[in-house]
Amino acid sequence: MTSKRFAEATEENLQRIFTIPEDPDSTLARIEQEVSYNLDGFLRANIVAVEKPLSEIEKDFLDSRVPEKPQFVSDIADELLDKLVAQSVHTSSPSFIGHMTSALPYFLLPLSKLMVGLNQNLVKIETSKAFTPLERQVIGMMHRMAYGSTRGSEKENDQFYQTVMHSADASLGAFCSGGTVANISALWIARNTLLAAQGSFKGVAKEGLYRAMMHYGYQRLVVLVSERGHYSLGKAADILGIGRQDIVTIPTDENNKIRIDLLKEKILQLKSENAGIMAIVGVAGTTETGTVDPLTSMAEIAQRYNIHFHVDAAWGGATLLSNNQRHKLAGIEQADSITIDAHKQLYVPMGAGMVLFKDPHSTDVIEHHAEYILRKGSKDLGSHTLEGSRPGMSMLLFACLKVMGQTGYEMLIDRSINNAQYFADLIASEPDFELVTEPELCILTYRYVPKVVKDYMAICSQEDKEIINELLNDLTRFIQKKQRESGKSFVSRTRLTPKAYNGQTITVFRCVLANPLTTKQILADILQEQKEIAQESWRSLPAILKRIGNA
Amino acid sequence: MTSKRFAEATEENLQRIFTIPEDPDSTLARIEQEVSYNLDGFLRANIVAVEKPLSEIEKDFLDSRVPEKPQFVSDIADELLDKLVAQSVHTSSPSFIGHMTSALPYFLLPLSKLMVGLNQNLVKIETSKAFTPLERQVIGMMHRMAYGSTRGSEKENDQFYQTVMHSADASLGAFCSGGTVANISALWIARNTLLAAQGSFKGVAKEGLYRAMMHYGYQRLVVLVSERGHYSLGKAADILGIGRQDIVTIPTDENNKIRIDLLKEKILQLKSENAGIMAIVGVAGTTETGTVDPLTSMAEIAQRYNIHFHVDAAWGGATLLSNNQRHKLAGIEQADSITIDAHKQLYVPMGAGMVLFKDPHSTDVIEHHAEYILRKGSKDLGSHTLEGSRPGMSMLLFACLKVMGQTGYEMLIDRSINNAQYFADLIASEPDFELVTEPELCILTYRYVPKVVKDYMAICSQEDKEIINELLNDLTRFIQKKQRESGKSFVSRTRLTPKAYNGQTITVFRCVLANPLTTKQILADILQEQKEIAQESWRSLPAILKRIGNA
Repeated sequence: MTSKRFAEATEENLQRIFTIPEDPDSTLARIEQEVSYNLDGFLRANIVAVEKPLSEIEKDFLDSRVPEKPQFVSDIADELLDKLVAQSVHTSSPSFIGHMTSALPYFLLPLSKLMVGLNQNLVKIETSKAFTPLERQVIGMMHRMAYGSTRGSEKENDQFYQTVMHSADASLGAFCSGGTVANISALWIARNTLLAAQGSFKGVAKEGLYRAMMHYGYQRLVVLVSERGHYSLGKAADILGIGRQDIVTIPTDENNKIRIDLLKEKILQLKSENAGIMAIVGVAGTTETGTVDPLTSMAEIAQRYNIHFHVDAAWGGATLLSNNQRHKLAGIEQADSITIDAHKQLYVPMGAGMVLFKDPHSTDVIEHHAEYILRKGSKDLGSHTLEGSRPGMSMLLFACLKVMGQTGYEMLIDRSINNAQYFADLIASEPDFELVTEPELCILTYRYVPKVVKDYMAICSQEDKEIINELLNDLTRFIQKKQRESGKSFVSRTRLTPKAYNGQTITVFRCVLANPLTTKQILADILQEQKEIAQESWRSLPAILKRIGNA
Repeated sequence: MTSKRFAEATEENLQRIFTIPEDPDSTLARIEQEVSYNLDGFLRANIVAVEKPLSEIEKDFLDSRVPEKPQFVSDIADELLDKLVAQSVHTSSPSFIGHMTSALPYFLLPLSKLMVGLNQNLVKIETSKAFTPLERQVIGMMHRMAYGSTRGSEKENDQFYQTVMHSADASLGAFCSGGTVANISALWIARNTLLAAQGSFKGVAKEGLYRAMMHYGYQRLVVLVSERGHYSLGKAADILGIGRQDIVTIPTDENNKIRIDLLKEKILQLKSENAGIMAIVGVAGTTETGTVDPLTSMAEIAQRYNIHFHVDAAWGGATLLSNNQRHKLAGIEQADSITIDAHKQLYVPMGAGMVLFKDPHSTDVIEHHAEYILRKGSKDLGSHTLEGSRPGMSMLLFACLKVMGQTGYEMLIDRSINNAQYFADLIASEPDFELVTEPELCILTYRYVPKVVKDYMAICSQEDKEIINELLNDLTRFIQKKQRESGKSFVSRTRLTPKAYNGQTITVFRCVLANPLTTKQILADILQEQKEIAQESWRSLPAILKRIGNA
């Protein structure tokens, strides 16, 4: 490590920092060159493959004092390269198939820089100007993608969007930092609509939840969602004052889809108990298995009982861009609100989520104003958003939609689903693996179970099965961790209670096949590596084999 | 306009988009070059100076269909330049002194690109690795900056931060997209702490607000803040189920600071009415006047009545980095939570806020887990944040803190406050202007009042004063709009009810002097331009003069 060099805090140096770009020969300029012209090469060359324990990494980030003296940019660039980049995650690697990140279109790098250079603030027109109409257009496009089919003709759609897209008192949706804020926003509207002003009661927004409950005579407020719903819904229930225990989870069938019969039953029961049902949430692409709920049936039920229907399509929403796949989300067009993350399958960098509202006036119940901005009648986007100041991320989605076009996105979506089906078939054909959940979109789960163990489990007692499953869980965890640490590839893991296992909790590998650069060879290599790790390990496997031998 | 050219949606083209950077001769590459090496020049050359009406701009963003066919990146780059950049706001211009944006340090441009290229997700370590300890360190630094003085010695501080900064069950704060989410997070914790589990009651997080109120026997929940509090507090009250009417605003004194006597009175009254006081919010840098509340007195009161004390220092927090100015925020070290925006006076691009917690265990009441991430005992940051997936913005603040150092930031902060004082003096010395609020930090308000009108108002009846003030309000609005439209410079406007005007609502110009490139000459020019606009206008001024003549 070089010794620290300090710069002088002079007026002149400060002015330089704000006015003079880095020298083309500087460290930072060189980093930028590599990032710009060979991102994958840069990441492979600079990220250390073998995982360092977190406790070791933390040693580089121990000082809790703001450094007193200024340091040179080039020294900080070196430091970031050595300590931060080296120990980052190559999330865009085609063999990093464990989470919802992917390689991104290259043109987003220069565009992101333009976005930062412009540094617009979307909360109000005075700091965003054309970015506000642009964002309204992007939201309009996404809205039409989701809801367009509810109108009879293209002409009707053209007219509808012409009227509302740029209207001051309409809101087709809200851009935000991610799916969690989108889900909170949707449920916020659902709550405020259910507990709206009535007679002398001024509404929950003004009077609060306690008075609202008393006014409406509800004993509790609930949100209904399948047991595969995202954890952000629990967080939303906490924040919105509903309470985590009032996220009522409905069991799923053998395909991880919500049980419609049980949903109906629960609604009738809740109604009889005088609960206010704030929303039914359908999941379009569960986080763990990529499953889509039967949205049409859910919409029917929501409509029959006059309940807000929200669809969490943070993951699956992009599927609507494929004419070959969008039938899987049928019914979404009846949702009152929809969450979609652009930083997932729309291939935009981190920090871009959105929520769409079927009724462009549904945001009236959360509208707010201030004296210096968001004045009544203004078109400032901030009067209908949970967040305040926000960057111009919608520009990146705008550019992606135009550069890819619907047909380009269709290829990407189809490719990812085909890839997942290929991988599922490969796993199913391998004697030593077990496919746990089939991919409906491009997420699947599986585990390693040697054939001899599989054969035994087919005939052994329930008790033995349970013991072996526990050992297999341990093995899955071990393989997943070891593979991650060795740095070549990454799958994630989660815990499921599949019907086929009599409700026992099973630890599984989880794969997300969204990266368009992931090849069949990479998938085969990942399985091969897992097999090798399992067979080299003397951890769980011997215990399992011993159990079989003992039986 | 050139006719649209379409690219083909082929596998090969898609692969190219994800693997091949833009050609150095392409439009986008040229834009990037200009942004990189002469940002101000690029913005001045490409942003159209004279304002186009919004309705005209909207015409470029009317199509609500996702384009079917892919288009070439260079065509989209041209389109963005023509339609978006041309009609954006030059927020970093030294003469754009109306809002809280500023020029940014140049090195943040390449660093932002690195951030996007790495595309880490801070919700969990598996997608962020070293970014997680880095963010914990940055939050540690900000925490020590705010709270360090509460411990006896530097050594005690070193020990404290060594213990908690990287601990799995401690949280010194949370990075987020901005001050609004930070304020909501702080009040969420305040609410859950006040309504925590007790006996058989499992806490508001689990059981919801209605049961919590019944358990604790409160009639209402309130948050106390001065009438100058930010509008996000009302939004937070709505979201958290408290109700907007239960943001109880306390009048301010002639310096826009909360009236401590009235605060005490109100607390006693609320206690007698069986209200749960969730939090007292001190403002450190009000949005409209840049004023700091008497934080020490507020902290004392909060402590005496055992109420959560939150300080909204979204704007003023950075002042703590100046040893010459930090005394203005004395008392902040006693706050239970503090909001600070990095994208304001810490000179980081849009999308970087944070909330700090005095007690690193205060987030226990909002902790949440999931099966696939945020497992119990993990150091995943997502288990204590309102947001889920988040980008690595903390890297930008990390770099700024090191490159500027405390002494560099001190210069910036001092400079901005001195600049504001200079401008205030200039306004006060101008016969035709009236300073409405003095700058305590670097925000001030004023208006244009011709000397002849001023003289008359000094002697006229109260009724006449009120009529003239209405006319002046109209004039202020007119000047502000006209100046913005002509595109050379920008001040914002707001409405205040200063004591000196007997509670009449006065429209004022509002200036934020944070841009280090704003010179004295620019400030003088802004006044000159306003004077000219006023004198050329035949709108309000004649009516005022007529009124005087008639009197």
